[in-house]
Amino acid sequence: MIWINGEPHPATGPHVSARDRGFTLADGLFETMRASGGTVFRLDRHLARLSHGLAVLGIPEPPQLRDWVIEPVGAAGTGDWSVRLTVTRGVGPGGLAPPAEVRPTVVIALAERPAVPARYQEQGLTVVVASGRKNERAMTAGIKTLAYTDGVAAWLEAQRAGADDALFLDCDGHCSEATASNLFVWTGRTLMTPPSACGALPGITREAVLDSAETLGVPATERLCDLAELLGAEEAFLTSSLRGIVPLVRVNGRAIGGGVPGELTRQLVGAYTALVAQEHRR
Amino acid sequence: MIWINGEPHPATGPHVSARDRGFTLADGLFETMRASGGTVFRLDRHLARLSHGLAVLGIPEPPQLRDWVIEPVGAAGTGDWSVRLTVTRGVGPGGLAPPAEVRPTVVIALAERPAVPARYQEQGLTVVVASGRKNERAMTAGIKTLAYTDGVAAWLEAQRAGADDALFLDCDGHCSEATASNLFVWTGRTLMTPPSACGALPGITREAVLDSAETLGVPATERLCDLAELLGAEEAFLTSSLRGIVPLVRVNGRAIGGGVPGELTRQLVGAYTALVAQEHRR
Repeated sequence: MIWINGEPHPATGPHVSARDRGFTLADGLFETMRASGGTVFRLDRHLARLSHGLAVLGIPEPPQLRDWVIEPVGAAGTGDWSVRLTVTRGVGPGGLAPPAEVRPTVVIALAERPAVPARYQEQGLTVVVASGRKNERAMTAGIKTLAYTDGVAAWLEAQRAGADDALFLDCDGHCSEATASNLFVWTGRTLMTPPSACGALPGITREAVLDSAETLGVPATERLCDLAELLGAEEAFLTSSLRGIVPLVRVNGRAIGGGVPGELTRQLVGAYTALVAQEHRR
Repeated sequence: MIWINGEPHPATGPHVSARDRGFTLADGLFETMRASGGTVFRLDRHLARLSHGLAVLGIPEPPQLRDWVIEPVGAAGTGDWSVRLTVTRGVGPGGLAPPAEVRPTVVIALAERPAVPARYQEQGLTVVVASGRKNERAMTAGIKTLAYTDGVAAWLEAQRAGADDALFLDCDGHCSEATASNLFVWTGRTLMTPPSACGALPGITREAVLDSAETLGVPATERLCDLAELLGAEEAFLTSSLRGIVPLVRVNGRAIGGGVPGELTRQLVGAYTALVAQEHRR
């Protein structure tokens, strides 16, 4: 199901103008959210992150934004959904200059949340380090723009190398994030995740995992992490809204810890699952 | 006028699916070309650059691509047109993984070529150095993807600073390019333009200007150029398909050379204009 500026549309389309700046220039932002039982997990946090991104890009925030998310999710009813919210600067005249009057395009796309392959939890997944770097000094570092071309290219490169996903280093050589998920590294003493200074997106699940670690009494922090630290770690995992926590067991063919999902990762999956269930009940 | 996969559509739209990966992930490429008298300037070079980009992204090249450009341009007839060719990976199921069967979306958008403001040629334009950097080590460096969000953000930042455009430095601090045009610097001895190793796009006009310099007997080359060299230059200018050669007279408020369009720039505008006219007559 597709909703555009609050109106439902058939899934097949067409839905948007070919002159929409989201299509021509990636001039927009998005959020991928998880909904269940008619509510979106941490909707406030997603909308706050989006608002910040809109302010950075100077795109006016449509006042109905929250309603335009809540209505389709409510209409979808129970069940487990992935909700993609896209906001663009709308139709433009060509070139980089925005039109005099900006009318943003807001798209909500609802789909059944895809099942996470069982082997991801049981065996963990593998990454290779991407041949290209993440730009921690980009104009749009830290906001979730539509510009995912590099992520797609890195993901395809990883598939060709026989891995599940790619891990980006930033231009300074620090670990940043995977193509569409955040990285966590457990040294045996500290759980760490790269800071936004490394070009890592401030993930909503990443934040919830930091909360879950606190619940378990595990010291957790944002910290620079180089590749050697990751390779020498006891455990590692990736986080995203749609997959939650997924163990990371190999990097460039080298095993992390025992090369199997670790004990702390398993505990955090439990704590995070409980947290999601608890927030959905409220 | 909008043509999609060879078929004409009303300009107003909607034209494309909200699930098109060009809209959701900037998963595609584009070319902006100049047409006049029914022919596109250096169409072969534009299509070659696009082909290379499609190969990098692993998007299959539609065999009818050239016809899909030539037909609308022929139909538009005489006059001076800007032709935007966009190719995306088409509709996808969500997430970064492409669909099993990729059916690219090809959009041709024709519009009257916007007049270059007279003051650009007469007085030259001004840039500020963007606060963010261009990533010369990106997965997609050197190909013209849809991911122009950083360019838009830098352009808006420049407008707020009272400048016409923004100039990107790469992550090493070398001059790269402006938001949608290449940079040339004249030292008084050599005409230089940043190489692709600095994240500069291999512009079609840039190439034609190197040809024009050869015609004039001016030594011209790709070379690393730092900001101090640009600030100390005798002349500088920007190049793009729609604007051609535009003098650059100020960077961060500091005058380049005399702070007015230079003599070599003027000669190159003449040689380039003659080159375009000559190639269109053929």
